[in-house]
Amino acid sequence: MQPLADFSRLSLNQITTQRWTLREAVEGCGREAIPAIGLWREKVAEVGLKESHTIVRDAGLHVSCYCRGGWFAAPTAAGRQQRLDDNRRAIDEAAALNAGMLVLVCGPAPDRDIAAGRAMVVEGIAAIVPYAQQCGVRLGIEPLHPMYAAERSVVVTLAQALSIAEQFDPAVVGVLVDVYHVWWDPDLYTQIRRAAGRIAGFHVSDWLVPTPDLLHGRGMMGDGVIEIRRIRSAVDGTGYDGFIEVEIFNRAIWEQPGDQVLALVKQRYRTCV
Amino acid sequence: MQPLADFSRLSLNQITTQRWTLREAVEGCGREAIPAIGLWREKVAEVGLKESHTIVRDAGLHVSCYCRGGWFAAPTAAGRQQRLDDNRRAIDEAAALNAGMLVLVCGPAPDRDIAAGRAMVVEGIAAIVPYAQQCGVRLGIEPLHPMYAAERSVVVTLAQALSIAEQFDPAVVGVLVDVYHVWWDPDLYTQIRRAAGRIAGFHVSDWLVPTPDLLHGRGMMGDGVIEIRRIRSAVDGTGYDGFIEVEIFNRAIWEQPGDQVLALVKQRYRTCV
Repeated sequence: MQPLADFSRLSLNQITTQRWTLREAVEGCGREAIPAIGLWREKVAEVGLKESHTIVRDAGLHVSCYCRGGWFAAPTAAGRQQRLDDNRRAIDEAAALNAGMLVLVCGPAPDRDIAAGRAMVVEGIAAIVPYAQQCGVRLGIEPLHPMYAAERSVVVTLAQALSIAEQFDPAVVGVLVDVYHVWWDPDLYTQIRRAAGRIAGFHVSDWLVPTPDLLHGRGMMGDGVIEIRRIRSAVDGTGYDGFIEVEIFNRAIWEQPGDQVLALVKQRYRTCV
Repeated sequence: MQPLADFSRLSLNQITTQRWTLREAVEGCGREAIPAIGLWREKVAEVGLKESHTIVRDAGLHVSCYCRGGWFAAPTAAGRQQRLDDNRRAIDEAAALNAGMLVLVCGPAPDRDIAAGRAMVVEGIAAIVPYAQQCGVRLGIEPLHPMYAAERSVVVTLAQALSIAEQFDPAVVGVLVDVYHVWWDPDLYTQIRRAAGRIAGFHVSDWLVPTPDLLHGRGMMGDGVIEIRRIRSAVDGTGYDGFIEVEIFNRAIWEQPGDQVLALVKQRYRTCV
């Protein structure tokens, strides 16, 4: 397991510098020579889609992912239709930004019936695939950690994400592997091998002990217990050579100056990823 | 999926009434005609093993489980030996209390190497099985929710628990199914069927939305999103007819008077379990 040779695959997911506007995050990447960024819809909406694209393009940045579509499950057919419409808008935006992938967060169930929620997710993905294909946008199904099963995602393992993705063309539907969500899985390395050709993105952060918060308690790489390099090596072993995106939801990190965070990201990227 | 006909299978895990001493919990079960109790080592130690046994026996209560052994992983061989010695003491105590099962919490890893931690768990269980058999104590491997993988248990799915348990005689090594730990699993019902003859215990509580605390944020049955009755029916479908134990780690519930908690437990047991 070798360290990465340089920063050519590093991407900053802009939630990591949550206080920065899109322009500030792009400028920060420029100062640190980080070649790619993961964008969020809310941040793009603040600036406007066209202006966001101009800012990113003029900086010569790649857009490694766009966060996020999905949320397919709703109690009524009309509600589910609204979600599909919103996903088509997200696909339009991802296409306009030339994003490598639209992240799909798949859930939660509208009530206690998690099996029904899961069926709605598969139906929802099937419904948007033709439009994604037409727009040239790849969808990335992201299994979330099981602690988010009730409120965010009924897709909770890489095996489950792959079983859905494999129903579609890998050029259109892949999976997003985020170490924070999958590190605990006894079946992880088997499923990473299975994911060869399907990995649309790879995200890193760390699992802190103790975890300060269910939602905003992720750690900087190296501050927790995840074997990040081992997982990254396995992902690369499938032939994945795309961006490695740093996505950290952590209030303490958000309070630090962005440039300081980026410097630490680069240091830990070399030593821990 | 029918409700349970009566309270003959109900057990109170004494953590649910955490402020009560062992004697108070036993007396509470007596007032509410709850036929069984799950005991904790700390609570037994407060009273003494012999006195605890006398209190429980004189009340005519069954001891559905004894919490808990396990914690096999340690960085040094000497450390692992200490854990084995402690497990043998726990087996002695479980035997003295005539407990139906000793719960095994299997982890955490001593460092980032979760695979090594998992190997230590299998070794640890293998090492105590002969003693458990000799003492007539059944061991129950409890998969914990993946959010406890770093701090408590490297065994995080029912499939994984079964793969370990199946290496041993089912009369000596079973699994404990706790709805809180397994409800999110896409493979749950397949694994419950696989567990036929291996289910040593069944615990219920609920997953609250939002979850107020990683450790002490479990809910009363019916207050969350778990399909408890569906899971209970599947467990019973394997032929399991043992106790259904209510184990709730929740600070708000701990602050309520114990008798009030037991009354609510019984009400929810009828309507939600």
